[in-house]
Amino acid sequence: MEVEQGATVEDVAHEIGPGLGRDTVAGVVDGDLVDKATPLTEDCRIEIVTESSDEYLDVLRHTGAHVFGQALQRLYPEAKLAIGPPTDDGFYYDIAGVELDEDDLEDIEAEMENIVEADYELQREIRSHDEAVDAYDDNPFKQDILADEAAGEDTVSFYVQDDWEDLCQGPHVDSTGDIGAITLLEMSAAYWRGEEENDQLTRVYGTAFESEDDLEAFIERREKAKERDHRKIGREMDLFSIPDHSPGCVHFHPNGMEIRRELEDYIRNKNDELGYDEVWTPELNKAELWKPTGHYDNFKENGEMFAWEQDETEYGLKPMNCANHAHVYQEGQYSYRDLPVRFSEFGTCYRNEQSGELSGLLRVRGFTQDDGHAFIRRDQIEDEITQTLSSIEDIYDRFGIEIAYKLETQGDNAVGSDDIWEEATEGLRDSLESLGLDYDVEHGEAAFYGPKIALNGIDALGREWTIGTVQLDFNIPERLDLSYVGKDNEDHRPVMVHRALLGSIERFMGVMIEHFNGNFPTWLAPEQVRILPVSDDNIGYAKRLKNADLGDFRVEIEDRSWTVGKKIQQAHDDRVPYMLIVGDNEEEAGTVSVRDRFENESKDIEVEAFRNHLADEVESRRVEPDFLE
Amino acid sequence: MEVEQGATVEDVAHEIGPGLGRDTVAGVVDGDLVDKATPLTEDCRIEIVTESSDEYLDVLRHTGAHVFGQALQRLYPEAKLAIGPPTDDGFYYDIAGVELDEDDLEDIEAEMENIVEADYELQREIRSHDEAVDAYDDNPFKQDILADEAAGEDTVSFYVQDDWEDLCQGPHVDSTGDIGAITLLEMSAAYWRGEEENDQLTRVYGTAFESEDDLEAFIERREKAKERDHRKIGREMDLFSIPDHSPGCVHFHPNGMEIRRELEDYIRNKNDELGYDEVWTPELNKAELWKPTGHYDNFKENGEMFAWEQDETEYGLKPMNCANHAHVYQEGQYSYRDLPVRFSEFGTCYRNEQSGELSGLLRVRGFTQDDGHAFIRRDQIEDEITQTLSSIEDIYDRFGIEIAYKLETQGDNAVGSDDIWEEATEGLRDSLESLGLDYDVEHGEAAFYGPKIALNGIDALGREWTIGTVQLDFNIPERLDLSYVGKDNEDHRPVMVHRALLGSIERFMGVMIEHFNGNFPTWLAPEQVRILPVSDDNIGYAKRLKNADLGDFRVEIEDRSWTVGKKIQQAHDDRVPYMLIVGDNEEEAGTVSVRDRFENESKDIEVEAFRNHLADEVESRRVEPDFLE
Repeated sequence: MEVEQGATVEDVAHEIGPGLGRDTVAGVVDGDLVDKATPLTEDCRIEIVTESSDEYLDVLRHTGAHVFGQALQRLYPEAKLAIGPPTDDGFYYDIAGVELDEDDLEDIEAEMENIVEADYELQREIRSHDEAVDAYDDNPFKQDILADEAAGEDTVSFYVQDDWEDLCQGPHVDSTGDIGAITLLEMSAAYWRGEEENDQLTRVYGTAFESEDDLEAFIERREKAKERDHRKIGREMDLFSIPDHSPGCVHFHPNGMEIRRELEDYIRNKNDELGYDEVWTPELNKAELWKPTGHYDNFKENGEMFAWEQDETEYGLKPMNCANHAHVYQEGQYSYRDLPVRFSEFGTCYRNEQSGELSGLLRVRGFTQDDGHAFIRRDQIEDEITQTLSSIEDIYDRFGIEIAYKLETQGDNAVGSDDIWEEATEGLRDSLESLGLDYDVEHGEAAFYGPKIALNGIDALGREWTIGTVQLDFNIPERLDLSYVGKDNEDHRPVMVHRALLGSIERFMGVMIEHFNGNFPTWLAPEQVRILPVSDDNIGYAKRLKNADLGDFRVEIEDRSWTVGKKIQQAHDDRVPYMLIVGDNEEEAGTVSVRDRFENESKDIEVEAFRNHLADEVESRRVEPDFLE
Repeated sequence: MEVEQGATVEDVAHEIGPGLGRDTVAGVVDGDLVDKATPLTEDCRIEIVTESSDEYLDVLRHTGAHVFGQALQRLYPEAKLAIGPPTDDGFYYDIAGVELDEDDLEDIEAEMENIVEADYELQREIRSHDEAVDAYDDNPFKQDILADEAAGEDTVSFYVQDDWEDLCQGPHVDSTGDIGAITLLEMSAAYWRGEEENDQLTRVYGTAFESEDDLEAFIERREKAKERDHRKIGREMDLFSIPDHSPGCVHFHPNGMEIRRELEDYIRNKNDELGYDEVWTPELNKAELWKPTGHYDNFKENGEMFAWEQDETEYGLKPMNCANHAHVYQEGQYSYRDLPVRFSEFGTCYRNEQSGELSGLLRVRGFTQDDGHAFIRRDQIEDEITQTLSSIEDIYDRFGIEIAYKLETQGDNAVGSDDIWEEATEGLRDSLESLGLDYDVEHGEAAFYGPKIALNGIDALGREWTIGTVQLDFNIPERLDLSYVGKDNEDHRPVMVHRALLGSIERFMGVMIEHFNGNFPTWLAPEQVRILPVSDDNIGYAKRLKNADLGDFRVEIEDRSWTVGKKIQQAHDDRVPYMLIVGDNEEEAGTVSVRDRFENESKDIEVEAFRNHLADEVESRRVEPDFLE
C-alpha cells in the first residue's frame, strides 16, 4: 500500500476503511507500538491497533499509569514522576519526593476512580525540546530523559488530560473513561535506570482492564499465584536458598537437589534416546572465545556478561554453551554419514542480570540449561526438528503442562541468504504441521542467526512461561567455519540446531513449584513416603518398612512423640505424597494404612500391594497418580 | 635436647653420636631442609639427613643442578643462571643468554660427567650482601633474588666447587663425586618467577641418582610413563581437549564424558550409602563469602583466586566448596540427634594456577571435586572417620590402586585448643588403627584448621598421587559460628569433616588414564563392545545384536569395508574391551566370536552367555575381568 509521505497511522487506517479509521487506537510500526498520529516517513510494516487487538490492553494500561500520575500529583503536588510504563500484568510508576503507606495508596486509588469517572480526553501535544527542559526544571528524571533518550530531538510529545500533563511517547486511549477498571497493587523499591548507584525511587504497581470482571478474574488469579509463590513454597519445603553473598545464584538444598537429580536423570535418558552425546565444558573461558561468534558484542558490551581482566587476560563466564560445543565439534572430523552429530550438556551459564530484576528461581544470574546442539545437513532439518518437537511434547506431558508453539520468522537483521531462510523456515513449518500442532507465526521476530520455534508452557493457573526452544543457526557454522565432508568429498557447511528441553533447570523448577503448588508428582517429590508410627512401639515396624520393603524409595519416619493427627497434618503441610500410618493392627497384619496429600485414605493395604503401586507410579513418572483403593 | 646457642646441625648430630656426626649431609629444621652448617638460634624440631634419609636424593640433585651450571658456563661463559632447584624427579636450571639444541645438551652432559669424575669438593662460603651484589652485576636474576628474598640480610651463602660458584642456600652433598649417575632430560620454556610478563628463560631438566642402576630404572619408568601420557591417550581415544581459549579448563568430549558419568554415578551411589545428601552451589559468589572463613586471605591475596570487580561488587569463582556448604548448614536448624549432617556435591572450582604450571588433566584451573562435608559432634569423630576411610579403601580397590596413608598433625600455626587437636588427632589415629591400616605420621604438617589424613594412590607404575583427603576442621565452625542444639538445649559447635573420595574428577581421570594405559575396565570404557561384521552381509545381524541383545551397553558397529584383520587392529588401538566378530557361521548359529584387548580369543559363544558375562562384569564394576572361555 502506498500513502503520501507524512501520512499518519490513522490516515492509513482510514484509507483501508472508514470503520477501521474510527476504531483506531494506536499502531504498530515495524514492531514498535506508536501513537495513531505518528507520521510515516519511510517504507514500513504497519498494524492497526483497535480495541480487539492484543496490544490494546498495553495502551489502556499506559493510560492507567497516567491516571495514577495525575491522582498522585493532585494529592502530593511535590511528588516527582520518573517513568511509568505498561507491563505484562498492568503498569507501574517510579516516583520520588514522597513517602507513601498502604492508606495513602487507598486515597490515591479513590482519586484515580474520580479521574476515570471524569472521562478526561487525552491530548497529544508536540512541544519544543527547550520548552520541555524548562517545564521540568525541578524534575531530574525527566531532565535525564530529555538529555538522553530525547537528546538531539527538536520536539518531544506530551500527553495532556484535564489540567495535568506528562512527557510521554504514548500511545494512549482516547479518554480516561475508556478504562473499565483500575486498581493499585503494591509498592517496592527501585533505582533510577535500574542501577544501584542511582537515586532510590518508589515503584507503585497497578493494573487496569476494560471491565470489572476482567479485573476480578485477574485479582483471583493473582491471589492463587501468591499462595503458590515458589519462594514461599521453596522455604516451606526447604528446597533452595539464594543468599546475599550470591545474588541470583541458587544454592540447592538436599530436598531441591533430589528434584534436580530426578529432572536431570529424566532428561539424560531422553538425550540418550535422541542420540545426543553428553559433553562437559567449563564456565570459565577467555573472552576471545565469544568474539568470532558475535556473542561478545551482544553480551559483553551491554554488561550482561561476567567478564574481567586478570593477569593481562580477559576472562568471561560462559553466557551460553554454544561456542564451547562448536569447539568440541571442531575437534572432530565428520563426514556426511556421521551427521547429525549431537552434543548435550547440563551447562551452567552466568549472566549479569541487574540485581533489581532478580526474582527467586525465575530470574537468576546462574542457571543450568539442559542444552543441546545438533550439527546437521540442510536436508536433515525437517527430520531433526520433528524428532525434537515430539520429544518435547512427550516431556511436557510428563508434567501436565500444555504447550503454545510460536514460529518466529526472518527479520530485517537476518544473516544468510533468503534461500536458506526460506528452506529452514519451511522445514520448521513442515515439522509443526506434520505433527498436527497449532502454532502462531511471529513475523520478523527471529534472532539474526536463524528461524526459531519458541515453546511456551501453560501452567495450572493458565500462565504462559517460555521454557524450551528449538532454533536453527546458520551464523555460528559460518563464522567458525564449521564443516563436514560431503559425498562429493568437498567441505560443506552444517546447520546448527540449538535446543533446550526444560530450558534452565532453575527456572523450570520455579515454574513447576508453582504449577504443582509444591505437590510434586511422586517421582519428583524429595520425600515420597512418610511413615507415621501410631506409638513408639511401632517404630521397629516402621524401620523394617523403610529399610527393607521400601528401600528403593525416599522414605522418612516421623518418630516425634506427636499424636497421629498432628503427624498427618505435618506430612500434609510438607506435601509428602504418601503417608503410611502403622499401628499395632497394621503391624500384626503386615499391612499399612495409606493417606495421600489430597486426603484420600485406604486402610489395611498389604505392604507388597503398596510397594507395587508406588513402584509403578514412580517408574512410569506418572503426573497424576490414581490413588490406590 | 639442649645445645649451646649457635651450635650447628652437624654439632647436634655429633652430640648424638660421632657416627651420625660423620654421616650428616644436611638437616631438616622445623620442616626446612638446611645446610649442616646452619646454626640453631632457637627451640626447634630437628632431623639429621644422612645418605639413608628420604631427603638425601633432594640434596644430591641440588648438587646435580650445580654440576649442570658449572658445565654450562664452562662451555658458554656468557650464559646467565637464574634458579636451579631439585624437583620430585630430578632438578632443573632456568637459564638465559644462550640458545641450546639437543646436540648442545649432549656436550654439556659430557662436561657434567667430567665434573662428577673430578670429584670437586663443595665449599659453603658466607659473603656480605654487598659483595654478592657486585659479583652479579651482569645477572639480573641473581640481582632480583638479592633484592627480594635476600633483602635486608647482611650476609648470603655461596657454594663453591673448583673455580665455579653459585649464590645458594644449599644444602649440598660434600663433593660432586658423590653423584653416582647424572643426565639431562629435556628443555622447555619458562618465565622468570613463573610470570608471563617477565623474561622468557630456558628450563633445562636433568636428574641425578646415587647409582647407575637407579638411573636406569628411572629412565625405564619414565619411558613407560611417556607411552602412557594421558594427553597422548586422551587424543587417541578422543576423551577431552584443553583449547587455547580456555587454558587449564577441560572440555570433556563424549568419550571422556562417558567415563566421567560412570565415575559420578559410582560416587553418587557411594554418597547415598554413606548418608550424604547432595547439594548444588554456584561457582560465582561475592568475594565477601570467603572473608570470614579465611580463604580470601589464603587464595585471593596470592592471586590464586579468579576474582574481579564488576558493578562495584567484588566477585569470585569458588576455589573450594566448603564456604557454600557451611551456608547450606546455616540455613537449617539441627539438634544433636540430626548429626552427622552430610552434604556432598560434584562441585566445580576454579583456581588461577600459573599458565606455565598447567599440565593436561593433572594440573588444571577448573576442576570438579567429589566433595563432601560432614558436620558432626566431637564424640562422632572416630566413627565418621572410620566410615569414610573404609569407603575410600573400597573405592580405590575398584580401580586396582593401593593407598599410602599419611597422618598430618598439629603445626605451629594451628587454631583451636591443644585439647581439641589432641582429641581429633587421636580420633584419626584410632580410625587408622582400628582398620589395621599402615600410615606415616607427618609431624606438624597439618593445615592450620585441623589434622588430616592424606590418601596417596599408588598406580600401576608405582607412582604416588595425592587423590583423596579426610580432614577435620575446627576453624570454619568457629569463624562462621555454626551450631547445633545439644541434649542440654544449649548451642554447641559442630566439627566439620572435609572429605574427597576421588579428589578432582579431572585429575583422577588423568591418573586413571595412565594407570590403565587407556585400557579402562569395561564399566568405565566409553565403548564397551565393538561388533566387527566379517562382510556387509552380516551388518543386519550386527545391528540386531547392538540394538536388542546388547541394548543396555555401549556398543558400536565397525561397518567400514575393511578386512577383519584391520578391523581388529583398529578396535585394539581404540582400546575397546570386547570385539565381537560375526560372520555367516556366527549368524547362522546365533553366536559371536569374542576377542579382548589383551588378545584373548573365544569362538562361538552363545549371545546370551556373552551378554551375561558382560552384564556381570559391568554391574560388579570388575577391575580385572576374567576372560570368558
